[in-house]
Amino acid sequence: MTKQVLLLPGDGIGPEIVAQAVKVLDVLNTKYNLDINMTEGLVGGAAYDVHGHPLPDETLKAALAADAILLGAVGGYQWESLDISVRPEKGLLGIRSNLKLFANLRPAMLYPQLANASTLKPEVVSGLDILIVRELTGGIYFGQPRGIRTLENGERQGYNTYVYSETEIKRIGHVAFQAAMKRNKKVCSVDKANVLEVTELWREVMTDLAKEYPEVQLSHMYVDNAAMQLVRNPKQFDVIVTGNMFGDILSDEASMLTGSIGMLPSASLDAHNKGMYEPSHGSAPDIAGQNLANPLATILSAAMMLRYSLGREDLAVKVEQAVSAVLDQGLRTGDIFSEGMTRVSTSQMGDAVVAQL
Amino acid sequence: MTKQVLLLPGDGIGPEIVAQAVKVLDVLNTKYNLDINMTEGLVGGAAYDVHGHPLPDETLKAALAADAILLGAVGGYQWESLDISVRPEKGLLGIRSNLKLFANLRPAMLYPQLANASTLKPEVVSGLDILIVRELTGGIYFGQPRGIRTLENGERQGYNTYVYSETEIKRIGHVAFQAAMKRNKKVCSVDKANVLEVTELWREVMTDLAKEYPEVQLSHMYVDNAAMQLVRNPKQFDVIVTGNMFGDILSDEASMLTGSIGMLPSASLDAHNKGMYEPSHGSAPDIAGQNLANPLATILSAAMMLRYSLGREDLAVKVEQAVSAVLDQGLRTGDIFSEGMTRVSTSQMGDAVVAQL
Ligand SMILES: CC(C)[C@H](C(=O)O)[C@@H](O)C(=O)O
Ligand SMILES: CC(C)[C@H](C(=O)O)[C@@H](O)C(=O)O
Repeated sequence: MTKQVLLLPGDGIGPEIVAQAVKVLDVLNTKYNLDINMTEGLVGGAAYDVHGHPLPDETLKAALAADAILLGAVGGYQWESLDISVRPEKGLLGIRSNLKLFANLRPAMLYPQLANASTLKPEVVSGLDILIVRELTGGIYFGQPRGIRTLENGERQGYNTYVYSETEIKRIGHVAFQAAMKRNKKVCSVDKANVLEVTELWREVMTDLAKEYPEVQLSHMYVDNAAMQLVRNPKQFDVIVTGNMFGDILSDEASMLTGSIGMLPSASLDAHNKGMYEPSHGSAPDIAGQNLANPLATILSAAMMLRYSLGREDLAVKVEQAVSAVLDQGLRTGDIFSEGMTRVSTSQMGDAVVAQL
Repeated sequence: MTKQVLLLPGDGIGPEIVAQAVKVLDVLNTKYNLDINMTEGLVGGAAYDVHGHPLPDETLKAALAADAILLGAVGGYQWESLDISVRPEKGLLGIRSNLKLFANLRPAMLYPQLANASTLKPEVVSGLDILIVRELTGGIYFGQPRGIRTLENGERQGYNTYVYSETEIKRIGHVAFQAAMKRNKKVCSVDKANVLEVTELWREVMTDLAKEYPEVQLSHMYVDNAAMQLVRNPKQFDVIVTGNMFGDILSDEASMLTGSIGMLPSASLDAHNKGMYEPSHGSAPDIAGQNLANPLATILSAAMMLRYSLGREDLAVKVEQAVSAVLDQGLRTGDIFSEGMTRVSTSQMGDAVVAQL
């Protein structure tokens, strides 16, 4: 049956990088019986400018109906004061919660062809391949009560609530353990159990859950130590599982270890293989519309979509191999350019990947 | 008037590294009119084993009466399940809150003599000199309500409260701006204002406060981006100011950028120059009692004590120069050892610093 893919190009470089992934998906449709139907919607600033809201009803409806969503990026200077991407009811967080996309998968891997892009010494990062599994619809991002109140003494106080239930912790734990089974069978659960009761429960539930996965080795690490270990010896990690906020921080730190955030995809999944796929990087408004952006993270996000939501592992691998091949050819957008390589534009890079398929 | 210094050697390598700092302080006492009186107390596991509590009343009383406290380290495998260092009413957090030590100063600087110890490329970290100002008695570490409750459906839920008032934010903000005035006049305030209301207030208050320091340039950064920028280009930072939890994470990440966490001191100050001083590293139980640990972070913590609590900037500088001199001599404990250098023990390193005074 034809699967429905919703494209949400969004803001900044979003439209031009999504366009390259679409070229790739088009080829798979015609050449490899992919059988998807793509439609487009508005999100973020682009939606705000038309509908006065970063997540219009019709976008949400289309997202709910779709089998998978490919997002470019949201946000930009002109909407900064408007909170485009944020707060439970809005933009990105609104999609995540409405679609129940509780599992965020963020690989941080170093392409051997780009080993030099890292700010870390080659021996520290060569072969790096970490998967961060971040809980995405709970924790302090969505906890109630929240707000800013005025105290009796007249001053204001801001407050948010960090909260996790056993069910939520188990659900994301399963995702991490299952991912580890297909990788190096190690899960490191990150918490701050020595200070926060909510993460004390987190640790307890993860420890229990590990009994269902006897082949997987579970370790626990405090978040401050994890932030440190990622710099000291990142290759000690296989799968890292953590809550929404710690995951936000650690996944960005981990992706920067590779030096090539323009290469890193992400997936946000619900319990039934529906997912939203997007590059790990942002909307880069400073280079938007100039055919300069690196489309590979978006193309690799499309590969994750093929794998997790469209049941086409075969095509996911094909796309990943195509990306690797264009790197082998020496093709580089500006963000990953180095001496001796061939500098290409966004669309040239997209075409080069297509040519490999 | 004679100032009172309370020594809390604590656990693991704590006693042996504090002993080296004491040698240094003794010399300053006899040779440079420092005029301090040192007494010793129990804290952490060492206190638990004697009194059944990581922060016994008599230690707290002595700490309240002292002008400054020098702490070694707390915790170790044997007390792990006992929560030695933790929770508001206990150990370390108990001292911080009872003594109102709201301002934690954590420098992350690279010693030119140890440039190679970093996992980052030399050009990325050479000359690194960041000061992280972390709020230490508020935020989610101390917020109420907190705990683990059973929901109506029978499952458990953990919860903590992230809370800051305007007064708390201003107070730590002043510390950061004043520190910046003596440095490169840049403050980067780190928050997650796009998601958390408590940090939306944080950002607003910092922005207002900046008007009182027209010479200082204030910027704001989301915590995920800060974790990334510390890896990408750490030298962009001068002073970073942030809340308790983000500060915990970012200061550990920043210190690891130097590759020499055995060199980094810290200070936790109240509003009246009273302070607790301790190395940034932990109790390292695996090498405890073997005369292997690096005492320099503790000695440099004593230097911070001279500067902030004892009004002896002159002696602080002397101690810092002595540390630099022993590094120039090529003396290295195991943690900072490299080819061609002279390996020394904990006490030899202490003696070498003393010899410079
Ligand atoms: C834009 C922001 C709300 C978001 C988050 O914090 O989740 C972003 O940082 C991310 O990681 O996708
Ligand atoms: C031991 C722990 C409670 C403590 C903290 O989180 O504050 C430690 O990590 C630190 O940074 O001093």
